[in-house]
Amino acid sequence: MKKLIIINGPNLNLLGKREPDVYGDMSFEDYFSKLQMTFKEVQLAYFQSNIEGELIDKLQEVGFSYDGIILNAAAYTHTSVGLGDAVKAISTPVVEVHISNTFKREDFRHISHISAGAKGVILGFGLASYDLAIHSFLK
Amino acid sequence: MKKLIIINGPNLNLLGKREPDVYGDMSFEDYFSKLQMTFKEVQLAYFQSNIEGELIDKLQEVGFSYDGIILNAAAYTHTSVGLGDAVKAISTPVVEVHISNTFKREDFRHISHISAGAKGVILGFGLASYDLAIHSFLK
Amino acid sequence: MKKLIIINGPNLNLLGKREPDVYGDMSFEDYFSKLQMTFKEVQLAYFQSNIEGELIDKLQEVGFSYDGIILNAAAYTHTSVGLGDAVKAISTPVVEVHISNTFKREDFRHISHISAGAKGVILGFGLASYDLAIHSFLK
Amino acid sequence: MKKLIIINGPNLNLLGKREPDVYGDMSFEDYFSKLQMTFKEVQLAYFQSNIEGELIDKLQEVGFSYDGIILNAAAYTHTSVGLGDAVKAISTPVVEVHISNTFKREDFRHISHISAGAKGVILGFGLASYDLAIHSFLK
Amino acid sequence: MKKLIIINGPNLNLLGKREPDVYGDMSFEDYFSKLQMTFKEVQLAYFQSNIEGELIDKLQEVGFSYDGIILNAAAYTHTSVGLGDAVKAISTPVVEVHISNTFKREDFRHISHISAGAKGVILGFGLASYDLAIHSFLK
Amino acid sequence: MKKLIIINGPNLNLLGKREPDVYGDMSFEDYFSKLQMTFKEVQLAYFQSNIEGELIDKLQEVGFSYDGIILNAAAYTHTSVGLGDAVKAISTPVVEVHISNTFKREDFRHISHISAGAKGVILGFGLASYDLAIHSFLK
Amino acid sequence: MKKLIIINGPNLNLLGKREPDVYGDMSFEDYFSKLQMTFKEVQLAYFQSNIEGELIDKLQEVGFSYDGIILNAAAYTHTSVGLGDAVKAISTPVVEVHISNTFKREDFRHISHISAGAKGVILGFGLASYDLAIHSFLK
Amino acid sequence: MKKLIIINGPNLNLLGKREPDVYGDMSFEDYFSKLQMTFKEVQLAYFQSNIEGELIDKLQEVGFSYDGIILNAAAYTHTSVGLGDAVKAISTPVVEVHISNTFKREDFRHISHISAGAKGVILGFGLASYDLAIHSFLK
Amino acid sequence: MKKLIIINGPNLNLLGKREPDVYGDMSFEDYFSKLQMTFKEVQLAYFQSNIEGELIDKLQEVGFSYDGIILNAAAYTHTSVGLGDAVKAISTPVVEVHISNTFKREDFRHISHISAGAKGVILGFGLASYDLAIHSFLK
Amino acid sequence: MKKLIIINGPNLNLLGKREPDVYGDMSFEDYFSKLQMTFKEVQLAYFQSNIEGELIDKLQEVGFSYDGIILNAAAYTHTSVGLGDAVKAISTPVVEVHISNTFKREDFRHISHISAGAKGVILGFGLASYDLAIHSFLK
Amino acid sequence: MKKLIIINGPNLNLLGKREPDVYGDMSFEDYFSKLQMTFKEVQLAYFQSNIEGELIDKLQEVGFSYDGIILNAAAYTHTSVGLGDAVKAISTPVVEVHISNTFKREDFRHISHISAGAKGVILGFGLASYDLAIHSFLK
Amino acid sequence: MKKLIIINGPNLNLLGKREPDVYGDMSFEDYFSKLQMTFKEVQLAYFQSNIEGELIDKLQEVGFSYDGIILNAAAYTHTSVGLGDAVKAISTPVVEVHISNTFKREDFRHISHISAGAKGVILGFGLASYDLAIHSFLK
Repeated sequence: MKKLIIINGPNLNLLGKREPDVYGDMSFEDYFSKLQMTFKEVQLAYFQSNIEGELIDKLQEVGFSYDGIILNAAAYTHTSVGLGDAVKAISTPVVEVHISNTFKREDFRHISHISAGAKGVILGFGLASYDLAIHSFLK
Repeated sequence: MKKLIIINGPNLNLLGKREPDVYGDMSFEDYFSKLQMTFKEVQLAYFQSNIEGELIDKLQEVGFSYDGIILNAAAYTHTSVGLGDAVKAISTPVVEVHISNTFKREDFRHISHISAGAKGVILGFGLASYDLAIHSFLK
Repeated sequence: MKKLIIINGPNLNLLGKREPDVYGDMSFEDYFSKLQMTFKEVQLAYFQSNIEGELIDKLQEVGFSYDGIILNAAAYTHTSVGLGDAVKAISTPVVEVHISNTFKREDFRHISHISAGAKGVILGFGLASYDLAIHSFLK
Repeated sequence: MKKLIIINGPNLNLLGKREPDVYGDMSFEDYFSKLQMTFKEVQLAYFQSNIEGELIDKLQEVGFSYDGIILNAAAYTHTSVGLGDAVKAISTPVVEVHISNTFKREDFRHISHISAGAKGVILGFGLASYDLAIHSFLK
Repeated sequence: MKKLIIINGPNLNLLGKREPDVYGDMSFEDYFSKLQMTFKEVQLAYFQSNIEGELIDKLQEVGFSYDGIILNAAAYTHTSVGLGDAVKAISTPVVEVHISNTFKREDFRHISHISAGAKGVILGFGLASYDLAIHSFLK
Repeated sequence: MKKLIIINGPNLNLLGKREPDVYGDMSFEDYFSKLQMTFKEVQLAYFQSNIEGELIDKLQEVGFSYDGIILNAAAYTHTSVGLGDAVKAISTPVVEVHISNTFKREDFRHISHISAGAKGVILGFGLASYDLAIHSFLK
Repeated sequence: MKKLIIINGPNLNLLGKREPDVYGDMSFEDYFSKLQMTFKEVQLAYFQSNIEGELIDKLQEVGFSYDGIILNAAAYTHTSVGLGDAVKAISTPVVEVHISNTFKREDFRHISHISAGAKGVILGFGLASYDLAIHSFLK
Repeated sequence: MKKLIIINGPNLNLLGKREPDVYGDMSFEDYFSKLQMTFKEVQLAYFQSNIEGELIDKLQEVGFSYDGIILNAAAYTHTSVGLGDAVKAISTPVVEVHISNTFKREDFRHISHISAGAKGVILGFGLASYDLAIHSFLK
Repeated sequence: MKKLIIINGPNLNLLGKREPDVYGDMSFEDYFSKLQMTFKEVQLAYFQSNIEGELIDKLQEVGFSYDGIILNAAAYTHTSVGLGDAVKAISTPVVEVHISNTFKREDFRHISHISAGAKGVILGFGLASYDLAIHSFLK
Repeated sequence: MKKLIIINGPNLNLLGKREPDVYGDMSFEDYFSKLQMTFKEVQLAYFQSNIEGELIDKLQEVGFSYDGIILNAAAYTHTSVGLGDAVKAISTPVVEVHISNTFKREDFRHISHISAGAKGVILGFGLASYDLAIHSFLK
Repeated sequence: MKKLIIINGPNLNLLGKREPDVYGDMSFEDYFSKLQMTFKEVQLAYFQSNIEGELIDKLQEVGFSYDGIILNAAAYTHTSVGLGDAVKAISTPVVEVHISNTFKREDFRHISHISAGAKGVILGFGLASYDLAIHSFLK
Repeated sequence: MKKLIIINGPNLNLLGKREPDVYGDMSFEDYFSKLQMTFKEVQLAYFQSNIEGELIDKLQEVGFSYDGIILNAAAYTHTSVGLGDAVKAISTPVVEVHISNTFKREDFRHISHISAGAKGVILGFGLASYDLAIHSFLK
């Protein structure tokens, strides 16, 4: 049974509360339950932190034993060389996801320090971006 | 039955022949047959051209009646304001895909004139990027 | 009797259909008929293509015999060195027009490869930009 | 009867004297008389100043009662945020004109602080640019 | 007997007609005849198009069987990622040529999307640039 | 009794009239009367001009005798090296204020030639920015 | 009774110790006591952390119940998209303050990721910047 | 007898008062008297204004009859396209001077809109820069 | 006896595991033991964290009592203004080290927010960079 | 008999020794002997120096009497305005050559201070670039 | 008796020969004799080299004993940090001169590595620039 | 016995004389004697030149037989592609040193053409930088 983990970065714990026109109005916890129901053949874990270094800690912790990581680094996507280094340093493949289409937003969100180390990138499908990312590990 | 079309841009007709370490060694026609086998519940069309304006023509032709367009504009992704305008001008949603992880390649491939008008972006999964894009239309 | 031609670039064939708040809701064909009615003292032709090279072909074809060219290169305005070269290479004067005020829109629409070779530039008056361009040839 | 005003910026009072190969050898006053003759159905005023703030003063003075303003801000076009703000602050529509094709000249003349607030832009037709601008208000 | 082809891009069909002080006053067809006379030991073909995608089509068509391609992509040199990709995708070596010394001209002509994939570059010798390019294939 | 002066730059005389969603709908004169009522322990003067040089003249005139200057240079904030030089040349401390949050607006409004010479900067509080600036002189 | 909180970012715990010519020689704790004495009509809290994510945590914790937040994000002002996102995500208004005039210092301190989401900005008044910020919430 | 005029821009009326370590402590009027004493063979006039447009007015007024203009446009040097245009538009040669070495100061003072139209440039010699400029007209 | 501390930033805890061709295959703990053996005359401490703010905390904790700090901020070198501020705020001298030659790697690794506040910089010698840094404190 | 000279810049005396995968493994002296054998109808000289000014000296020495100069300025190509000035100052035509395709290498090698003054440019053909350059003088 | 030296950089030995429309047709030696005649109260030396390092050598040799240096570094003005360092390292004041108005020429000639260390700058007066520079040392 | 050489670039022969607050007041010759005393187990040579090409000559001369080169290219560090090429072309490892912390100085000193080819970089330790560099060769 494949072990996957979703790692969410800063402010994603406000999902459902924060700018719902951009991010939708469902909390991530509720969505995560739905994902577990949908993908019963996968062991699916979840981690969220607003602290850049805790996200690096978690990537290092799971990055040599899990089968896949789905990383939405949120704001740190655009500023964190350290997260990008961690993604490259570990052996588990990482899929980068974003809920919104970052290319429709401010210029500084068009830069990603994660992409170059990622297996692939999926963005703009709302919460369904996570769904597609899990799919990408099931082939 | 949903009508989807895959539109491929310049040099993708060389797939399987061109730089196989980057793009794989299967021709797109062969891959397309496999896709049709996999997604029998979808009516799946395919178009390729090396001519920017013919890609615009095709987007306009299908862009008010199809249920979804999967667009890999290849090199034109990075230079064509005209294709970007066409994507915004039509009503059918467009998912942008790339076979390779464009963010691992030259700087000029990090810019997309398509993304801002697209429903979502999927890149870096090899030919499986198309597979995931079809999935994104099936929800 | 003066011979003038209007040459329209990519996506202008969608006029009336595409983003009507930006471009208005009249098709260009209808507007062209009105222009012919208004300017009966002029022999007025019309050409549209989504293909950059066909626009160059047409400029070359008419560019040594017509009295004036009214060119709305649309998206190619901002990306086509080849169209700009053609405008400089021919002997018929070219007036550049745009329906919308391109300076109110995205930054990449503030650059024109056409302007430096044009006799003059008229933009932002909606379809009336064409009308004024014809006027500019009647003095 | 429509009330229009032509507002000219710095050094345009030297017209006919200054760099005649760029700007022609007719003084603006002479040209203005000709315009008045041509457009007898319009009440046409004229104002020129070398002082940025006086141009702003004039825009504010006429900008809530006139039917149209034809503004050639000359050098201030490229440097004056204040004039641009004034154009946006008033309710009378402003058409930006330039005698020369600014895009054939130095790079710093390719930037306009006026355009984004203007109804339209006409440039490069020599003094006929003013003529076309008046036309644009007669429809 | 070696098979070489000269592929010319946009506006080069106007040679002899367009800006003769920059490009000379001989048509390319006449020059091509002279080249065939000079290099009788070579089978020399010629293709010209104003359409970017047709140039890509031709590169793909000859790019796996000819012994050498002499490519003057003209304006597309500076804007076409697609042509650059095609040059890299094929196996026939490509020599990039330009008639004028592009480094004496506008800044945007100093960038080439072709060079990085080319075997070599020859520019600035007028039509003799083609002559030298053929020489480069005869060693 | 402290002597303070408010110096307002271009287009602020249109306050209440111009873009009321950005700047509010009260005229500055009315607001100034309210300020005088609120701060009776201060001798409060007011000056406005649309002319950059007159603002410099006024800064020089009051800049060696007043206890404080509250400067809203409006558009000249972003373009006037001369005003910035005047602020540095005088001995009275200057507090820079803006009604709107300039950082929420166009990029060119993010640059200030005044800030480096100012005692402090207050912006974004609507007309209350002036109120806070007077407070800053009362400690 | 209004509930306000001062949130201070990295190295502000060294106040009084670090570069006293830039930041003064009073510790923030001492200054905070003075503020509480001055503003007895306000319930005033204080939080400091050197960890970006803990600042985000705190903003989220107080950002839906407090009446106002006074945020001096110090170095993170210039680098943290995450803090900027948090400021926009919460409903309590945030006033950005800086002790020094950041515009007199290094270029990288002229950029703020906080300003665009802030109600207002106050900077350069030394510790009195906080005082003015509290004032801004008392109207 | 040669007619020369010194035209000084903004804040130079504060000379002797403003930042004396940069500009010296002599007023320009006193220095001008000394210049008149030194150069008795020259008819020497003097004009100063803080208003950009008045400097343009003066250049136009003297620019077709005087033998030489010595222009220290101060802050407007770096921002005024209008002054640069005036310098080019008149027939009297203009020598640009600066008291301080502008290249030792802020970056924005390294740009001059005057230099390209000037006969020559003299800077950094303190008030002696004017002296040398008069010399340059005496050959 | 001198008290020195080595402070390591993000992902350096993976040393020996992560990209061994860039960073070598020895864990830092093993190397640290060797350093302690080599430099018996020094009291040598060690701290590592992936959290930017914890590195700032540690710099503040040791920065007024230790004799020297050897800081390898890793990825935070290139992004952390906060760490740079901390280095300047403390009184203990800091030597910046890097294992790899950062100038041989990506452009964004050529920028350091630490260097300007550091006593010196040593980079590119592999783990021996730490060794040399300790040497620098022994003179 | 035509007099030509090859002038080689810095490090080209290491040819055959330095990075042979980029520059080949034949010394330039050996190659020069072969060139002399091949082109017996030409008087062929050779000069090499690592000193920028000696290359300028040599260009000046031969630049008014030789029939052609073949200049490979190597690293100085990208940094020497002085060499570029010398090429323009002399009357003998200069052909710029490079052994490697400089456009496949680092960005700073894409800039040439020589090209704008050169008769033509030949690059990327290995040592055969010199051969082609001699050819270019034989027509 | 004051000891002054004129130091001329690359290609100035071609004066009178090179681009006479830019630099005049008198050799520098002839002009130097005239200068010696004119300024009999000064001991005037002259040095020219095309080699950057020899110019540095000469600056160091005379830079602690002469009363003044007149430096026209020509092309090295724009590229030589080493010359700029030498100018700052010596104690003799240096006046930077240029024959042509460098601001009327290519952009790369608008940058000077000499200016920031120079006592003053004189440019654009043709050979008279040297004359004025000597004057500047006679006060 | 190891053979090492110190190669110093322009103006370092002025050490002890030039800007002593930046570079200290000891001449390099005196320091070199001290180094020889300290490192008796090493054969230590020394070379200095102000001429870029002589530094390249020396690198080539020693670069295939010495055990190590300690290169302080001074100003040429920031401008010499030729020195960088030489460093890469030779087989002896090069350690780059700087006396001052170049990152505390002007921006143009933050760029090094040497670093990418160097074994390691040591800077900011005053003359002790050389000492540490020798150490780096003794392991």
